[in-house]
Amino acid sequence: MTYFKTIEKIQYEGPKSTNPLAFKFYNPTEKVGGKTMEEILRFGIAYWHTFTEDLSDPFGVGTAVRPWDKYTGLDLAKARVEAAFEFFEKINAPYFAFHDVDIAPEGDTLRETNKNLDIIVAMIKDYMKDSKTKLLWNTVNNFSHPRFVHGAASSNNADVFAYAAAKVKKALEVGKELGAENYVFWGGREGYETLLNTNMKLELDNLARFFHMAKDYANEIGFDAQFLIEPKPKEPTSHQYDFDVASGYAFLQHYGLENIFKFNIEANHATLAGHTFEHELHYARIHNMLGSVDANQGHPLLGWDTDEFPTDLHTTVLAMYEILKNGGLGRGGLNFDAKVRRGSFTPEDLFHAHIAGMDSFAIGLKVAQSLIDDNVLDGIIEDRYQSYTEGIGLDIVEGNTDLKKLEAYALDLKDIQHASGKQESIKATINQYLLTTFND
Amino acid sequence: MTYFKTIEKIQYEGPKSTNPLAFKFYNPTEKVGGKTMEEILRFGIAYWHTFTEDLSDPFGVGTAVRPWDKYTGLDLAKARVEAAFEFFEKINAPYFAFHDVDIAPEGDTLRETNKNLDIIVAMIKDYMKDSKTKLLWNTVNNFSHPRFVHGAASSNNADVFAYAAAKVKKALEVGKELGAENYVFWGGREGYETLLNTNMKLELDNLARFFHMAKDYANEIGFDAQFLIEPKPKEPTSHQYDFDVASGYAFLQHYGLENIFKFNIEANHATLAGHTFEHELHYARIHNMLGSVDANQGHPLLGWDTDEFPTDLHTTVLAMYEILKNGGLGRGGLNFDAKVRRGSFTPEDLFHAHIAGMDSFAIGLKVAQSLIDDNVLDGIIEDRYQSYTEGIGLDIVEGNTDLKKLEAYALDLKDIQHASGKQESIKATINQYLLTTFND
Amino acid sequence: MTYFKTIEKIQYEGPKSTNPLAFKFYNPTEKVGGKTMEEILRFGIAYWHTFTEDLSDPFGVGTAVRPWDKYTGLDLAKARVEAAFEFFEKINAPYFAFHDVDIAPEGDTLRETNKNLDIIVAMIKDYMKDSKTKLLWNTVNNFSHPRFVHGAASSNNADVFAYAAAKVKKALEVGKELGAENYVFWGGREGYETLLNTNMKLELDNLARFFHMAKDYANEIGFDAQFLIEPKPKEPTSHQYDFDVASGYAFLQHYGLENIFKFNIEANHATLAGHTFEHELHYARIHNMLGSVDANQGHPLLGWDTDEFPTDLHTTVLAMYEILKNGGLGRGGLNFDAKVRRGSFTPEDLFHAHIAGMDSFAIGLKVAQSLIDDNVLDGIIEDRYQSYTEGIGLDIVEGNTDLKKLEAYALDLKDIQHASGKQESIKATINQYLLTTFND
Amino acid sequence: MTYFKTIEKIQYEGPKSTNPLAFKFYNPTEKVGGKTMEEILRFGIAYWHTFTEDLSDPFGVGTAVRPWDKYTGLDLAKARVEAAFEFFEKINAPYFAFHDVDIAPEGDTLRETNKNLDIIVAMIKDYMKDSKTKLLWNTVNNFSHPRFVHGAASSNNADVFAYAAAKVKKALEVGKELGAENYVFWGGREGYETLLNTNMKLELDNLARFFHMAKDYANEIGFDAQFLIEPKPKEPTSHQYDFDVASGYAFLQHYGLENIFKFNIEANHATLAGHTFEHELHYARIHNMLGSVDANQGHPLLGWDTDEFPTDLHTTVLAMYEILKNGGLGRGGLNFDAKVRRGSFTPEDLFHAHIAGMDSFAIGLKVAQSLIDDNVLDGIIEDRYQSYTEGIGLDIVEGNTDLKKLEAYALDLKDIQHASGKQESIKATINQYLLTTFND
Repeated sequence: MTYFKTIEKIQYEGPKSTNPLAFKFYNPTEKVGGKTMEEILRFGIAYWHTFTEDLSDPFGVGTAVRPWDKYTGLDLAKARVEAAFEFFEKINAPYFAFHDVDIAPEGDTLRETNKNLDIIVAMIKDYMKDSKTKLLWNTVNNFSHPRFVHGAASSNNADVFAYAAAKVKKALEVGKELGAENYVFWGGREGYETLLNTNMKLELDNLARFFHMAKDYANEIGFDAQFLIEPKPKEPTSHQYDFDVASGYAFLQHYGLENIFKFNIEANHATLAGHTFEHELHYARIHNMLGSVDANQGHPLLGWDTDEFPTDLHTTVLAMYEILKNGGLGRGGLNFDAKVRRGSFTPEDLFHAHIAGMDSFAIGLKVAQSLIDDNVLDGIIEDRYQSYTEGIGLDIVEGNTDLKKLEAYALDLKDIQHASGKQESIKATINQYLLTTFND
Repeated sequence: MTYFKTIEKIQYEGPKSTNPLAFKFYNPTEKVGGKTMEEILRFGIAYWHTFTEDLSDPFGVGTAVRPWDKYTGLDLAKARVEAAFEFFEKINAPYFAFHDVDIAPEGDTLRETNKNLDIIVAMIKDYMKDSKTKLLWNTVNNFSHPRFVHGAASSNNADVFAYAAAKVKKALEVGKELGAENYVFWGGREGYETLLNTNMKLELDNLARFFHMAKDYANEIGFDAQFLIEPKPKEPTSHQYDFDVASGYAFLQHYGLENIFKFNIEANHATLAGHTFEHELHYARIHNMLGSVDANQGHPLLGWDTDEFPTDLHTTVLAMYEILKNGGLGRGGLNFDAKVRRGSFTPEDLFHAHIAGMDSFAIGLKVAQSLIDDNVLDGIIEDRYQSYTEGIGLDIVEGNTDLKKLEAYALDLKDIQHASGKQESIKATINQYLLTTFND
Repeated sequence: MTYFKTIEKIQYEGPKSTNPLAFKFYNPTEKVGGKTMEEILRFGIAYWHTFTEDLSDPFGVGTAVRPWDKYTGLDLAKARVEAAFEFFEKINAPYFAFHDVDIAPEGDTLRETNKNLDIIVAMIKDYMKDSKTKLLWNTVNNFSHPRFVHGAASSNNADVFAYAAAKVKKALEVGKELGAENYVFWGGREGYETLLNTNMKLELDNLARFFHMAKDYANEIGFDAQFLIEPKPKEPTSHQYDFDVASGYAFLQHYGLENIFKFNIEANHATLAGHTFEHELHYARIHNMLGSVDANQGHPLLGWDTDEFPTDLHTTVLAMYEILKNGGLGRGGLNFDAKVRRGSFTPEDLFHAHIAGMDSFAIGLKVAQSLIDDNVLDGIIEDRYQSYTEGIGLDIVEGNTDLKKLEAYALDLKDIQHASGKQESIKATINQYLLTTFND
Repeated sequence: MTYFKTIEKIQYEGPKSTNPLAFKFYNPTEKVGGKTMEEILRFGIAYWHTFTEDLSDPFGVGTAVRPWDKYTGLDLAKARVEAAFEFFEKINAPYFAFHDVDIAPEGDTLRETNKNLDIIVAMIKDYMKDSKTKLLWNTVNNFSHPRFVHGAASSNNADVFAYAAAKVKKALEVGKELGAENYVFWGGREGYETLLNTNMKLELDNLARFFHMAKDYANEIGFDAQFLIEPKPKEPTSHQYDFDVASGYAFLQHYGLENIFKFNIEANHATLAGHTFEHELHYARIHNMLGSVDANQGHPLLGWDTDEFPTDLHTTVLAMYEILKNGGLGRGGLNFDAKVRRGSFTPEDLFHAHIAGMDSFAIGLKVAQSLIDDNVLDGIIEDRYQSYTEGIGLDIVEGNTDLKKLEAYALDLKDIQHASGKQESIKATINQYLLTTFND
C-alpha cells in the first residue's frame, strides 16, 4: 500500500531549485572533508513525531491528517510500519528511532504488550532487509501511561520501578534484534513536581541502580549498543534530574557510570536549560561524552519544548563545527526529534519539514568544514592561548608551579597586555562563510 | 588630530574579500529596488556607545582603549567630536545620534550644563558643514544622574519633573540647531521599582503632560522633527511604562498623543519584552506607527540589554522585510544602539563591529527585496486569506453581516477545509533566498 | 447520585484546625471592612478544570480519577452537572463558570451541538433553582477543535469566522438564560504561529468586528452581562494578540471598544507576559478596566501556563489590595482557573486544592484590609508625592506650566533633595502584617 | 567616630512592634530546637554591599549616601572599617565577609596592593579583638579590574593566571590571620563571552589547577578554612563555568576536587540558573556538599542578579528546612550578599534591609523547626516511599535484583495502585504553619 502517493523520491536539485520536494543543499553522495554527507550526517527519522504524533497540544486535539489513521490497534501499527519504510525510502533516510509504544499498542499486561511488540518488531525486521534504513536507537516510553505519574525508575512505588525495568529489558532485546546502534534513556518523569513530597536521594540512587542493571543486561545478552542519557531541564516535571549535560555528568560520575554512558544532546533541551546547543555539544565533546544528537530547535521566546525542525543556520553551522571537531558522531546520528507545527498537518508537510532540516544541517556541515579547512577558529584560539606554550604559562599547564612561584612572578608585574577577543569580527567572518560557501 | 590612525576609509570589496576592514555586503551606492543601499538603510552611529562608552559592566570597570581618553572635561568633549567625525567619515555614516550628556559634561547647575552644550553644539555644527553625516536624532539622558533616582517625568519629586523638562527644552533647541530629523524619548527611569510606593496613575498622567509640553514647545520654535517613543520592558527599573510597542500605543491613545508620536523600535528591547524584533516592527507598521529603529541584537539566553551589534541574518532579513513593506523608514533610520563586547576594547573593534552590523543589514535588505520581488510572502498571504474576498468572507470585512446571519450560514456546515500553514516550507524558502541572493 | 461520598460540607474551623477538609482562614460570613468574605471574594469554580479536565499533559495521558467517568456522551455531561452542583454545595461556592464544550458534547453540526447544549442548559437551570451558586460567566471554546487550527475570529478562513460567531451567539443566549454576570473572551487561537504567513492587520480588524457583533447581539437580546477580554501572551500560539492588559487596551481603544469591554485578568497569564499579577490588576484598575479575575498562579521557573491553585500569600495580599482599592470586583469574581497537579488525581484533591486557594485569598483579603485600615501604603504614597500638591508640582498637575516656565524654575536649582523609596522596609512591614493579622 | 548617629543597637521587640529599627522576629538568644537563633542562623554582613557599594547600575551612577564617602584612598578604607564595626555591633552581627578590594585600595603593583591590605587587615584584627563579630569568609575580587577582562584562572593570558593566583595566596594568608571559617571562590570572569574564541578544555583544566594549588597552599600555611565554590550561571560572562551546584559538582569530581570543596549557594544565582533556592540547597545537602549560603533573593521577572534582601517567606521557610535537615551550616553561615535598592540610598536603609532579611530568616527558622517537630514533611515522605522497605522494593534498594527478576515480577501485574502526591494540600499546610507559628 502507498501512503504518500503524491510524493516521489526526494532528489538533490541544488540551491536554485524551485521544487519544494527536492533537496537544495543536502546531496547525500557529495563528499565533504573526505566522507559523503550521508556518512557524516547520519540522519534519523523519529518514529513518534512522524508516524504516531497527532499534533494535539494542551489547548486542542490533534489536527494531523495521516492516511493510516483509518486503522486501529495492531492494524494501525502495521500500517505505520508500511508508511514509515515508504517515508524512509522517499526521504532517503539512513536511520530511524523509536520508543516501544510508538510502534505497537500496549496490552492489558506487559506480557500482552510484549506480544504486540514481537509482531511489529518481526515486521520491521522484515522491512529492514529490503531497506537501507537502519535503527539509530530505540528506547522505551516510561512516561505517558498513568502508572508513571510519579516517575518510572524514580517512582515512589517499587512496582513501577519493576514495571519500568521490565520494559527496558524487552527494549534491549528488541534493540539487539534490530541491530540498534545506540540505546537512549530520556526520563520523562524522572524528576519531581515538588520537593515537598520527594525523596530525591532515594530517587537518584534508584535511577543509578536502574542504569547499572540495564547495562548489565545488555552485556549479558551481547547487545553492544552505545548507551546514552538525554538531558532535559524541565517538562513534563518541574525539575528533571538530567537537567543538562553537566548535571548528567555529575550524576554519572557520582554513581560510577561515566565510562558506560554518553549523552544524546537535543538542541531544544539545551536552550530550555539556558545553554546554546553548541555549548552542550562542546561540553560533552571535551569530556569525551558526545554520543548522539536530537536535531531540532526551540522557539527562543517560548518556554516549552517546541521541537521545531531546525532551520536556524547560525546554529547548524556551530553544531556541525562541534561534531566535526569531535571526529564525527561515531555510532550516533542526527535524529530529527522534531514535529511539524500543528498548522502543518498534511502528509506533504512531513517531507517539507524534513527537507528543511536536512538542508539546514547540510549547509551547517559545509560551512563548518570550510571554517576548519581554513583554520579560522582554531587559528584564533591557538593565537589567543599562545602564552600557555612557553614560560610561566607552560609551567602552569605542566604543573611546575605553585602559589609562591606565581606570586614571585606577579608581585611587581605592571602592564599586562591584552588582545581584543574580536567577537564581532569573528561573527562577521562566519556570516561571510555562510553566504559564500555555496557560491562557487 | 587623527584618532584612528591605522584605519583607512572603509570600502566595499565584495563577499569574498579577506580584508577585515572592508564592507563585504554593504555597497552604499548599489541600487536595491530603485534606491541606493545608503538611501534605504540610513545607518546612524550612536555617540554614546562609540565615543562615550567605557565598557564597564556591573562586575567590572571600563576596559575601552580610546585615544581621546587622555583628555578630561570640555577638552575630552571636543576630542570626542573630532574622533566622531573622523569615524563617521571613515565608516561612511550618513547619520549619527546622541544624548545631551554624551557630547558635553554637566555643570553644577543646568545653566552651566547648557553653556557646555552650547560650546560643543557649535563645534558639531561646524563639523557638520564639511561632513555628509547628518543628525538622525538627539535626546536627553534623564536617567543616569542621582537626581533621577525615582524617575524624571514620572518622578515623585516635582523639582525633578521641572529639571527634566528644562533639559528637554534645551535638547529641542539643539535638535533644531543641528537639523535633527527626529527627537527620541527613552524613559530610562520612567517606570517603577516596586508598586508598593508608586502612584502609577499620577506618574502616567505626568508623563503624558510632559510629552504634550515637549511637542508644544517644538511647534513653538518651529522644530519639525518626528517625535518618537522608544519602548523597553524593564531595566533599569523593574517595570518600564513603555513596556513594548503595544503598551506604548495604549498610552498614546489614552492621552491623545497617538497622532504626534511614533515609535523608535529596538531589537533587544523587543526580545526582552518577549517579542521578536519583526513583531514589534510589524505591529507598529500596520498601525502606521513605525518611526525609526535601534539596530542591535540581544543574547537570546541573557535577561538584560546586551546591545550587541546585529549579526543574526534571519532577523535582519525579516526586519528589512518589514521596513521595505513600510515603504522605508521615512525620516527614521537604522541607528546602531549597539556596543562592542567588553573584551573587544580596541579602537579597531569599533570598525569591525559596525562593519559586521552594516553588512548584516545589507544582506537583510537584498534578501528581503528578493522576497518582495518574487512575491514570496505576499503571495502566500493573498492565497491564505482568499476567503475574505468573496461570499461570506467579503460580507464580514465589509460589515454586512451579524451573528444571526453568520449562525444561519454555519449551523449546518460540516466539513470546513483547511490548507496547511506551511511554516517549515516557508522557512526553508527564506533560507534558500539567504544563501542564493549573493550567488549571482 | 452522590459523587463525593467521603466529603461533608466544608466548614470554617479556624487557623489551628488539623482537619484537611476544613477552611482555616476562609470564613464566608465573617465581615471584613463592612462586607462578608463571601460578598467580597465572590469565588467561582471553573467547570473545565474541576469536572472536565483529565490531567493529561503533552507527555502523558490523563490520570484524573473521577467517579462520573464511567459515563459517556450526554450521560457523562449530565453526570458532570450532578457532580458539579454537589461540589458547589460542599465547597460552598457562590459562583461557577464554563465554556460551551465543558458542559455538553459537540455534535456533527453546530445545530446538533446546540441541541445538546439546550438539554444540559435546561438541566443546569433546574439545578440552579435549588442552589445558591450563580453563573459568574460563560464563554465558548473556540480553540480546541481542529477547525480552529488557524484561529477563530482571526482565522484565515471565513467559514471558521462564521462558525465561531455562531457559537458565540448561542453562548450569549445561554448566558442570558442562566443569568450570567459576565461574558468572557479568551482567544486561544487568536494570534499567530509565525508572522511569515499571517495578515495581522486583517486578523485584528476581524477580531474587532467580531467583538462589535457580539456586543450588538447581546444588546439586541437584552443580555446585560459585563463583557471581558482575557489577555495571555503566548500558548498555544507563539504570539497571542491579547498579550497583556496594556496591549489589550491598545486594541480596544484602536477599535472603539474601550467603553464596552473590561478585562478578566489571570495571574499566570500575567507572569507569562513578564508582569506581576498585581501589576496587571493595578494597570487595569487605574484605567477603570478591571472586570474580573482568574485566580491561580504560575510556577516562576516554568514557561507555560501551569494554572496552579494560588498559595503564594505575598501575591494574594497584593492582589486583594488592588481589588479592595478598586472598590471590589463589581459583577466580576475570583474564578479558580486552576487545576490540580497531575499527581493529585483523586476527587478529594479537588477539595484540598480549592480549600488551599480559598484560604489563601481569605488571608490576602484580611491582610490587605488591615493595610488599608492602617493607611500603610496610601500613607507612604501621599507622603512621597506631596510635592505635587503645591508650588511647581501643583502647576504641573493643573496644567499651568510649560517648558519655558519649568526651565526658568530649574535653571539654577542645585540640590534636589530625595527621600528613600524604602522598598525593603515596606516589604518587612507587609510581612509583619501577614504574620500578625491572624494573631489576635 | 560615629557614622550611624541616629541608630541605636537594634533590639528584639516582638511581632507587634511598630519600631522600624527593631527586630520583630529575630530574637538572637531565643532557643529553637535546642540552639539559639544566633547559633543556627550565623548571619554574616557582606562588606561590599554594605560599605563599598555605591548603588550604581548600568544606566546610572551611584546614589548611596554614606557618611564615610568624604574620605579617599587608605583613609576611606579605614573609615569603612570603623563604620563596619559600628554597624556589626548595632545590627548584632556574628559574622562578616569581604573581598580583598572591598577593604583596601589597589596599588600600582600587587606588592603595593598587599601593603595596603596589610595595613587594613591589621586594623580589622585590632577591631575584632573588641568585637563579637567574626570572619565568616574572605575571598578575592578577580573580576573587576581590566586585567581580568578575559578571565582570571581561566584567562587566555598566563600572566593573568599568575596574578590571580598571587592574589589568592595573599587572601589565604589574610584569612588565616583573621581566623576566617571559610574561603570562597566565585569566578566572576571564569566563563566565556563566546565559544568562538574560547579553549574551554584548557580553561577548565587551568581552573582545576588553580583550585588544587590554592588548597595546597592553605594546607602548607595551616589555614584550615572550609573551601567553597559559589555557582552562578551567567553574568557578567555569557556562560559561567560554575553554572549551578550540579555542574560545579561535575567539575569537582572530574578533577578530583570533590572531597576538598563544598558549595556556597546563593538564592539569586539559583533562580538565574532555573532552580529554586531550596533545590540547590537540597541537591548539595544530599551529596554532602552544602557549605554556606548567600542569603538574598532575585526578582522573579528580571533576568539579572538583583541581589535583593530576602523577604519571601515561602522561600526562607524551605531554605531553613534544608539547612536544619543538614544539621545546620557547620562552619558556614547566612551571608547577606544583598544590596539595598538604588532608591534606598540612606544609611538607615542599610539597617532596615538587614532587619528585613534577618527577620525573614528567623521566621523561616521557626516555621521549619515546627514542620520538623511535627514530622510534617518527613512523615509524608516515609509514607510515600514505604514500598521500598519491603518485598520487591527492598530487593531493589539492597541490590538483590536484576532486569530478569523484575520482569518476572512485572509481566502480569495489572493494577498498580497510586496515592495522590497531595501537592496542594501540603502547600496549604505549610501556609498554615507560617501563619500560626507566631500565634502563641
